[in-house]
Amino acid sequence: MVRARKYVVKRQFQGVPKQEDFEITTEELPAIKNGEILVKTEWVSVDPYQRAYNARYPTPYDQFGFQLAVVQDSKNPKFPVGSKVVSHKGWRDYTVIDPNSAPTPMDKAYRMPDLKGLPESLSIGAVGMPGATAYFGLLELCKPRPGETVVVTGAAGAVGSIVGQIAKIKGCKVIGFAGSDDKVAWLETELGFDKAFNYKTVDAASALKAAAPNGVDCYFDNVGGELSSTIINQMNTYGRVAVCGSISAYNEDPSRVPKASILQPALVGKELKIEGFLVPRWADRWPEAFADLVKWISSGQMKVQEHVTEGFDNIFKAFVGMLAGENVGKAVVKV
Amino acid sequence: MVRARKYVVKRQFQGVPKQEDFEITTEELPAIKNGEILVKTEWVSVDPYQRAYNARYPTPYDQFGFQLAVVQDSKNPKFPVGSKVVSHKGWRDYTVIDPNSAPTPMDKAYRMPDLKGLPESLSIGAVGMPGATAYFGLLELCKPRPGETVVVTGAAGAVGSIVGQIAKIKGCKVIGFAGSDDKVAWLETELGFDKAFNYKTVDAASALKAAAPNGVDCYFDNVGGELSSTIINQMNTYGRVAVCGSISAYNEDPSRVPKASILQPALVGKELKIEGFLVPRWADRWPEAFADLVKWISSGQMKVQEHVTEGFDNIFKAFVGMLAGENVGKAVVKV
Repeated sequence: MVRARKYVVKRQFQGVPKQEDFEITTEELPAIKNGEILVKTEWVSVDPYQRAYNARYPTPYDQFGFQLAVVQDSKNPKFPVGSKVVSHKGWRDYTVIDPNSAPTPMDKAYRMPDLKGLPESLSIGAVGMPGATAYFGLLELCKPRPGETVVVTGAAGAVGSIVGQIAKIKGCKVIGFAGSDDKVAWLETELGFDKAFNYKTVDAASALKAAAPNGVDCYFDNVGGELSSTIINQMNTYGRVAVCGSISAYNEDPSRVPKASILQPALVGKELKIEGFLVPRWADRWPEAFADLVKWISSGQMKVQEHVTEGFDNIFKAFVGMLAGENVGKAVVKV
Repeated sequence: MVRARKYVVKRQFQGVPKQEDFEITTEELPAIKNGEILVKTEWVSVDPYQRAYNARYPTPYDQFGFQLAVVQDSKNPKFPVGSKVVSHKGWRDYTVIDPNSAPTPMDKAYRMPDLKGLPESLSIGAVGMPGATAYFGLLELCKPRPGETVVVTGAAGAVGSIVGQIAKIKGCKVIGFAGSDDKVAWLETELGFDKAFNYKTVDAASALKAAAPNGVDCYFDNVGGELSSTIINQMNTYGRVAVCGSISAYNEDPSRVPKASILQPALVGKELKIEGFLVPRWADRWPEAFADLVKWISSGQMKVQEHVTEGFDNIFKAFVGMLAGENVGKAVVKV
């Protein structure tokens, strides 16, 4: 019999999530049935949507999230003992999974993709949901063409840092906004962004005008708020915006969405298209993204950085640190 | 030799346009050359974009706008004397036009479409640019399907009243927002809207929730601002928004765009698509819209109402009246 530990969200977050909003509980796992597997978690992911979706679920609920685990017992020949499994089972150390049961595309457990020797933690980062988010949001919705100017906010985050590098690979000029001078330096010197700005200290409108004198063609929006309004106001005719998130608003009361300059005048005047998306839309195409991402990372065309926290008991700390922007690159926890 | 009278915008509008911002001047027209025509204006159009575009042009400029005119002299066999011409030559009584010269699609003068006996003034309204705007914005961008719920703001205006009726013809449930109880009554009893609200007196969020308990699939946005944010927050997954204008902001200082609740959370959560547009995008397809609109109006499936002002000297008054929402249906001026 295996006892599992898991994070339970006890109540709705008010503003920044607090340690007391969570409880670590234990539960006894049942013996696996035909088709099922028992896995032991090795890595768990902390991501902004874990904050954003909080208001959707009645509490208490088990904290969802991507994790990489190793199969310890198996009654499913597709997932033999020792194989690695990516699932959305969240912040817990042991799990019984039925890979044939997936009420939603996000719930589908899958074998870790072939990483060609890259670190396995990438399977919940650049070669996982965040990588697929960057890949499909940028390529399917922004559809950047060589020579175009692409702006990304949250540029030093798990998704933004991949978005900017894919845009560079596709021959675009890339401008990023991030939240510290260190991140800006990393984007420009390590990742090859053409220009990056610290949105906390720069006048975004004039900085962007100087960096993109011919206007912005594509914008990958991770943040929402006034910064996004400023960028969208500098877009060119038929510009495309992919809206991935609005982290600037995640810690706000969901019944009081923040206000920012309206987008309609720019939308009409420049005939812009703005699309919001959730990456499960392309769930059956994730392997396509993973193959490209592994190729780019292996060849050195794309650089990935992880912000690693150690220890199951530190997942909460990693989570609020990520929400506060302490991470450069993908925030992950080694259990 | 013909002397023409015309409205010249002398200076940038500050807030609501003022009579003193305009000057009526006269000019002597040259003799027509080969390919040209001399036309006498019969109807001119007043429209919201004439306010919105003011900041784009250095003053002084001749006030642009659609007009219907009759050919008085012709050196162009496609436009014989007595034929009727729609052009974007604006608020003036006589004009020399070269129909072969059109720097932009909007500048293209064209023969009045076959109205099958309907009033000729419709050629600058329901069977003109505003009709094409409603037609393509709704059908090409919102792509409403039978049974879906369509919301339109500025619903009693030239464009909005057509949008709602096309949506009804396409089998949708239609909800309109307008600015007076009279307009609301007209939309519900005359035009067949399923429900209409006076946005000035109703709580839009709860009213819409009651009228569209299953959510909103398509939104045709004429107004921008908080009302649009409220509507967009009640949209269903994969909802589509066509942004035609933002009249709520037109009288504001263009350097200080108003603020409203941000759209990004709804955009992401419901994977919405929002597209702004200008109807010249479909300039070569306007005849297709006109044919359908004439058919619907002739058959009684679509009702049109015009708000007619008489007299060249009253165009300004008609213009500010339209901006204040005094018109029900299309505001036109009989010269």
